[in-house]
Amino acid sequence: MIRRAESVAINGAGPVGSLLAVMLARKGYKVDVFESRPDSRRTNIYQGKSINLALSDRGWLALESVGLDSEIRKHAIPMYSRIMHDKDGNLTEQPYGKDGEAIWSVSRAGINEQLIDLAETEQGVKFHFGHRLVALDFDSNNASYIDEYHQRYSHQSNIVFGADGTFSKVRRLAQEIPKQRTSYSLEYMPQSYIELHIPAGENGAFKLEKNALHIWPRKDFMLIALPNPDGSFTCTLFMNQEGQLSFDSLTTDLRHSRVIAEDKVSSFLHENFPDAMPLLENPVDAFLSKPASALCLVHIFPWVFSNQVALIGDAAHAMVPFYGQGMNCGFEDCRVLAELLEQHHYQWQDTLAAYQQERKKNGDAIIELAKRNFKEMSELSGDPMFLLRKKIEAEAYKRFPDLWVPLYSMVTFSPHISYHTALVMGDIQREIMDEVMALPNIEENWQREDVYKIIEANAKEKLQGIGS
Amino acid sequence: MIRRAESVAINGAGPVGSLLAVMLARKGYKVDVFESRPDSRRTNIYQGKSINLALSDRGWLALESVGLDSEIRKHAIPMYSRIMHDKDGNLTEQPYGKDGEAIWSVSRAGINEQLIDLAETEQGVKFHFGHRLVALDFDSNNASYIDEYHQRYSHQSNIVFGADGTFSKVRRLAQEIPKQRTSYSLEYMPQSYIELHIPAGENGAFKLEKNALHIWPRKDFMLIALPNPDGSFTCTLFMNQEGQLSFDSLTTDLRHSRVIAEDKVSSFLHENFPDAMPLLENPVDAFLSKPASALCLVHIFPWVFSNQVALIGDAAHAMVPFYGQGMNCGFEDCRVLAELLEQHHYQWQDTLAAYQQERKKNGDAIIELAKRNFKEMSELSGDPMFLLRKKIEAEAYKRFPDLWVPLYSMVTFSPHISYHTALVMGDIQREIMDEVMALPNIEENWQREDVYKIIEANAKEKLQGIGS
Repeated sequence: MIRRAESVAINGAGPVGSLLAVMLARKGYKVDVFESRPDSRRTNIYQGKSINLALSDRGWLALESVGLDSEIRKHAIPMYSRIMHDKDGNLTEQPYGKDGEAIWSVSRAGINEQLIDLAETEQGVKFHFGHRLVALDFDSNNASYIDEYHQRYSHQSNIVFGADGTFSKVRRLAQEIPKQRTSYSLEYMPQSYIELHIPAGENGAFKLEKNALHIWPRKDFMLIALPNPDGSFTCTLFMNQEGQLSFDSLTTDLRHSRVIAEDKVSSFLHENFPDAMPLLENPVDAFLSKPASALCLVHIFPWVFSNQVALIGDAAHAMVPFYGQGMNCGFEDCRVLAELLEQHHYQWQDTLAAYQQERKKNGDAIIELAKRNFKEMSELSGDPMFLLRKKIEAEAYKRFPDLWVPLYSMVTFSPHISYHTALVMGDIQREIMDEVMALPNIEENWQREDVYKIIEANAKEKLQGIGS
Repeated sequence: MIRRAESVAINGAGPVGSLLAVMLARKGYKVDVFESRPDSRRTNIYQGKSINLALSDRGWLALESVGLDSEIRKHAIPMYSRIMHDKDGNLTEQPYGKDGEAIWSVSRAGINEQLIDLAETEQGVKFHFGHRLVALDFDSNNASYIDEYHQRYSHQSNIVFGADGTFSKVRRLAQEIPKQRTSYSLEYMPQSYIELHIPAGENGAFKLEKNALHIWPRKDFMLIALPNPDGSFTCTLFMNQEGQLSFDSLTTDLRHSRVIAEDKVSSFLHENFPDAMPLLENPVDAFLSKPASALCLVHIFPWVFSNQVALIGDAAHAMVPFYGQGMNCGFEDCRVLAELLEQHHYQWQDTLAAYQQERKKNGDAIIELAKRNFKEMSELSGDPMFLLRKKIEAEAYKRFPDLWVPLYSMVTFSPHISYHTALVMGDIQREIMDEVMALPNIEENWQREDVYKIIEANAKEKLQGIGS
């Protein structure tokens, strides 16, 4: 393999930083990865927390491009459908895509450690755990770190990446330099979240349907559950932080009486999630034991500073988890960057400019789509008319696979359609479907031929030719 | 006067902080004002920089409410119209409002020092210059400052204001506290600016029409000039920072040849501002001597933290200068706050909640209006059809003074109409005027009765009943 002259420093050894290290090592670069936290493989920094992520086609495509997919797939569980649980415990199932299409439940910690393991086997890759970035000279690319022994460590590289997540230090350092003219926004969502747990049954039995993502949609709040290989489910409760029914309102009594607070939370959970309650492990304790976590969106521009420092993954586009695309988008960033590097003959300045040009608009688009999807998951997935709309769209997809790909499928299963194009086309589809849903007696008539004639004609007129 | 129990600390002794000090002292509070910079009355911190501001009715109303208007008016110059200078030196005049309505040119430093002088005469007000805020406990309201002798100084108060401008330290400290859930955005405008100077003529003569704001609108850039009492004019050149014709493109040659850079800038200025060039003092040197200043917008929410710390003025809503409303909006914040304090019987928690509720939407509205106004000033004010549109609107205003107040007049001369209402009504007016401007031969027919019948009918249907 050609060894290339430029050295690369990646800040952040999360899934995106680790995958980027593999990709750049394969291109012949010396790569140093700096991570402020200790090595999770040696110290349990997750403290029993088991965050799950949904890996889908954009993520897989990136992993395939460096042959890591089969290794990762060993520990991933396919979820072929959403299963909605109503207040009476009735279930409604909705396939995510066509036959065999699935999103995959993986453990955040697990995939991260696998990717670090795989990256460490690459020639030229070195991980530096427990190294906290404290300064970065954007002209010389000299970076200073404080290590676990409080020693200062200097590192010089040609190219620097900030793959250091939602609260990226690389980004914050860039923001402090006026000449970088960094526009920035951080937006708190009204919703926060807590994690709950459904343990495995006897002999690792799954207590809910294994190959599905479970949703208890309750409009202003919702519970979701994703399966783990050991038979357990990781659950997340999303709800407003403040207001009439909120984390604040349900925990306010904690100040004077834990018993009253427990009662309130217990009633709330029993009333809303009756079929989940017998399965959940100490949900009231889990609810009250720590504050809910905030959800933020981050927009930033530029993504590239001084032609040699670039943001990638959440550092560039932190989004909410409602489309299951955070990690997938970060992996796609890596894949596209690697492709652009080749297209631009390994000229970094041109590559990074093209990367920013190509990815910024897609980052903006998926942030927007993810934000909108809370409503879809929490409210609409419990609404019969919305489910009918999805059924009609699925039927249209079957009949005109090249003309009508539903938005969810574009985002999740169609990596060749960019997020930006998906957003634009999705808005047009919504207008067309609004018309269709306004047809008389659509509930009875939805399978009639003329419904699909209307969709086809509209799609041909309004959707064809919109490229990525 | 009733002395009230609560003490107030105001961070920032700019015009807004100083006016707020007067208002709160008048209500009976002990007020300490902390300013990181030295006292400009003793040290010349403006270094010959003479920023001008346009004071208009919202500002005056706030000053009147504490009787400071007549003192300020002594050093203010009324500007009754915009005078546009085209590339051939031809002038077009456009009145800002009805007869006698004007915006007033005041010096930033001058009005600030006057307000500090006036505040110092109030019982209970104390200024602490050279005190840099370094920490603030949002629960106890204990603040730490470093003074000019590098000594740490602690101050305890009941209520804290951040009147500390676009880069507010109070705001930055709040952002660092996760439980405050502070959403924030800072947006760089494409335009930056430099200041130029037209000195007075002999015996303090004004070299341009004194009672006007002068504009050289050139679409992607513009020069403006505001009069000073000594006969000079303060000029500001706004232009893109980057791109084909920009501060960057015009100064890039500085790296290898100052002579080439001077040539380039000189040709640019002569070509675009031929009538201003003989009046300007060393414009080429001024252009090249220091980097252009950036223009930013800041959005933040909340404005109130822990029920006892509040942002006011630019700290809460930094905007661009294109509507001349930055200081006026800050003064209005103060006036409204003082009124709410009375309405809420001097209960701070309720007052601050009402203040945020009332002012946040107005801050957002004027930020948006100011941003849009660059196009109006730089591009449209040189466009005959746009000037005709303004003429028709002025005529409509004369005929239906209660029904049709032009947007500029609502924002500038109508403090009883909120910024938010002005924005909403302005958008409706634009739609109506789009219709009017599309009438056949409107250039000839604009004075015909039926034009105003259309405006009247539309205004009655669409504008009436929209309250502030």
